[in-house]
Amino acid sequence: MPYTYEYPRPALTVDCVVFGAADDGLKLLLIERAVEPFKGRYALPGGFVDMDETTEEAARRELEEETGLKASFLEQLYTFSRVDRDPRERVVSVAYFALVRPSAVVGGDDAASAQWVDADELPPLAFDHDEIVRVALERLRAKIRYQPIGFELLPPKFTLGQLQRLYEDILGRALDKRNFRKAILRMGVLDELDEVEEGVSHRPPRLYRFNKAAYKRLAKQGFNFEI
Amino acid sequence: MPYTYEYPRPALTVDCVVFGAADDGLKLLLIERAVEPFKGRYALPGGFVDMDETTEEAARRELEEETGLKASFLEQLYTFSRVDRDPRERVVSVAYFALVRPSAVVGGDDAASAQWVDADELPPLAFDHDEIVRVALERLRAKIRYQPIGFELLPPKFTLGQLQRLYEDILGRALDKRNFRKAILRMGVLDELDEVEEGVSHRPPRLYRFNKAAYKRLAKQGFNFEI
Repeated sequence: MPYTYEYPRPALTVDCVVFGAADDGLKLLLIERAVEPFKGRYALPGGFVDMDETTEEAARRELEEETGLKASFLEQLYTFSRVDRDPRERVVSVAYFALVRPSAVVGGDDAASAQWVDADELPPLAFDHDEIVRVALERLRAKIRYQPIGFELLPPKFTLGQLQRLYEDILGRALDKRNFRKAILRMGVLDELDEVEEGVSHRPPRLYRFNKAAYKRLAKQGFNFEI
Repeated sequence: MPYTYEYPRPALTVDCVVFGAADDGLKLLLIERAVEPFKGRYALPGGFVDMDETTEEAARRELEEETGLKASFLEQLYTFSRVDRDPRERVVSVAYFALVRPSAVVGGDDAASAQWVDADELPPLAFDHDEIVRVALERLRAKIRYQPIGFELLPPKFTLGQLQRLYEDILGRALDKRNFRKAILRMGVLDELDEVEEGVSHRPPRLYRFNKAAYKRLAKQGFNFEI
């Protein structure tokens, strides 16, 4: 194989920032490193890119190998290239991110264990993974202001309270209940149902469901959700 | 130097999508390739990443070497990794983009010539550069809907007609004059001046200038510019 550019060249890896929207808050999927460098430290799932796969394919493969999770949707986040970001050698990493419902995960490969960790109580991570997570959180928080993401994480019928908690978990701050309701209903993507939440005796809250056509239109044109 | 991951590994390049907002429309900065592959074909300025530089530093360096242009602001666009995107070997490329005032450019290095080409009349480009340009245009068009970009490309005092033409050039379509004026004034980033355009005899148009404080606030919080 004729190489047109001589070695050395940077190694290329992928890293996956997978957020989980759980009932008790926002989680991040981490592995505990089983090998040096940073053995025993938490890190993002990821690894080296093979010659016959795209970076997105590598991200899906590494995520499944290391955590058992098959991501239906991975979005490219950013490519991190600080020259000293890996103590072994020059490594450039393409980061991907996803927002999912947390599910059972298993360890494998060089991951001693994979687990969901509270996003607001993260331990110090290996490599520059703290920075990668920070950039991913910024992107996620910016995105829910102009794209309808996260909605698919709720059950088919949900209360406005459940939706507000999801937004609060992602934004990391409390939202005013009245303002949130006004803003979310103004978007016109929710259908109010003739049903209320069951198992709640006193003033059970109304249930809503997504209007997928309006949702699609909104996803395409974008919006500004003033919260 | 101990390598932890054996060769072969992908080569890593950068490519620069530099749009120019000219008086006669949107331009794209291209080079004519002086060497194979795709000798004689137009391509984006770019090249291989050195071991001692970040991808952004590589993008700035290659852009200046190949076109003479020093970009003040380059934003990372996306990393392209299709396995067959380069006929020589496996090459992954980190693309950057910028929007500037077109200025004089010079050729150099492996660029036979660098020039500004009309963005709506692009020739077929080398490698997957057509796709990279398409993604950059999408990003640019999405961005002007929720971030105040492009404003700094106008002279300090400008007419609403000049601003509308800039938006039309970027969006690639005509905008309704009344709707545009209403939407842009509602954003509250323009100060109306007590001056009119000179050298225009009949009903000279009013001049405006940016309110930088409002502009900064808007850049931070985002907005939805309904055009």
